[in-house]
Amino acid sequence: MTQRIVLHHFPLDPASRQARLALGEKRVVFEEVVVRYWEPDCGLDRLNPSGQPPVLVVEEAGRQRLVLCELTAVLGWLQDNYAAPALMGDDPADRAEARRLRQWFDRKFDYEVNALLLHEKMEKRLLGLGPPDMAAMRAGREALRRHFAYLEDILKTRDWLAGRRLSLADFAAAAHISVLDYFDEAPWAAFPSVKTWYMKLKSRPCFRPLLADRQPGMAPSSHYDDLDF
Amino acid sequence: MTQRIVLHHFPLDPASRQARLALGEKRVVFEEVVVRYWEPDCGLDRLNPSGQPPVLVVEEAGRQRLVLCELTAVLGWLQDNYAAPALMGDDPADRAEARRLRQWFDRKFDYEVNALLLHEKMEKRLLGLGPPDMAAMRAGREALRRHFAYLEDILKTRDWLAGRRLSLADFAAAAHISVLDYFDEAPWAAFPSVKTWYMKLKSRPCFRPLLADRQPGMAPSSHYDDLDF
Repeated sequence: MTQRIVLHHFPLDPASRQARLALGEKRVVFEEVVVRYWEPDCGLDRLNPSGQPPVLVVEEAGRQRLVLCELTAVLGWLQDNYAAPALMGDDPADRAEARRLRQWFDRKFDYEVNALLLHEKMEKRLLGLGPPDMAAMRAGREALRRHFAYLEDILKTRDWLAGRRLSLADFAAAAHISVLDYFDEAPWAAFPSVKTWYMKLKSRPCFRPLLADRQPGMAPSSHYDDLDF
Repeated sequence: MTQRIVLHHFPLDPASRQARLALGEKRVVFEEVVVRYWEPDCGLDRLNPSGQPPVLVVEEAGRQRLVLCELTAVLGWLQDNYAAPALMGDDPADRAEARRLRQWFDRKFDYEVNALLLHEKMEKRLLGLGPPDMAAMRAGREALRRHFAYLEDILKTRDWLAGRRLSLADFAAAAHISVLDYFDEAPWAAFPSVKTWYMKLKSRPCFRPLLADRQPGMAPSSHYDDLDF
């Protein structure tokens, strides 16, 4: 039986990046379809009523067998079907910590940083909404530094965000931060432990495809794909 | 070994309500601590760095054994430790649908409805931010009707949101909608299938504690705790 797995995603969308990192780490072979999801005729809403990436489609014998809409469904399906490598520890406290930090990034970081900085630097350009608002950019940068300071505190005593092993928390954090790094917004110099952690992640095979992403008309920062920045 | 489980929550917070519904459905015995999480000295940030409810604390022999911060961690811990009753079907498509709809409510509904309607009707009063803005209320009500229309479509052909069995998707939807119903904002009359579904949920034992919630200074709608409204 031939199985074909297709990920519909946008390269600079943090949720899409989490899906790609998790699929890559689990060594799932998949094809990619890039969707410009903000364009009304992009067709993504025929797969996902919310119109949001990522969407993972599993086909068998040429027929759509499963449509996994939203990151939660993609990660849940991976957990149900690909046990190894596990993307969370076995210890209840490690699992709680991985889940806490995943939600931290997908909610708190998204509200406090992305809604300002990513909106001004990326979404407004994609949507043709005019130049960035400098006050919003400044507020977003201040929030980003607060989040980096929080991560620095955690990573002074831990190898990975949720403890001794790589977990979904690292992928969530790296997915968000890597998009901001594409736009040269990550304040690496002031946070050495965060930088070391990010270098370790960057050199993993699952990360390589993200470093090759290029959005037309938006050049990445000079160090974006440099493993030793 | 004595185990003590304490949920720190705010009664009209949709994420807290999801935690209570899931704990109730799994018949977990727990104590409750109500937190006014928007007050700087409420102390919740000593348990959860984000300062947000819900937080579930598991104590054994008088010692904090596990602190589960954020809804994701509470639900994940429940899934890891209390197999029955399952809050998702076994079929991959049912699981994908339950997860999709959970994210629909916790993200899309939260952005489009709560950020307007719940902010104007509840948060501004709790925070002392002045009277509601009528334009924001109107936009929130229109968004809520669009979401009800979407649910009505789904529930015309399904017993429960994700298919033939009750799932986390129903709890997510009901947690959000029940808060709006407390403030008399749910447009039941125009959406009979949604109303029937909500009546079924309302009569479950896990729902009863939510119907007894009363926020000082904010009376609920007259039908809020009526099972046959």
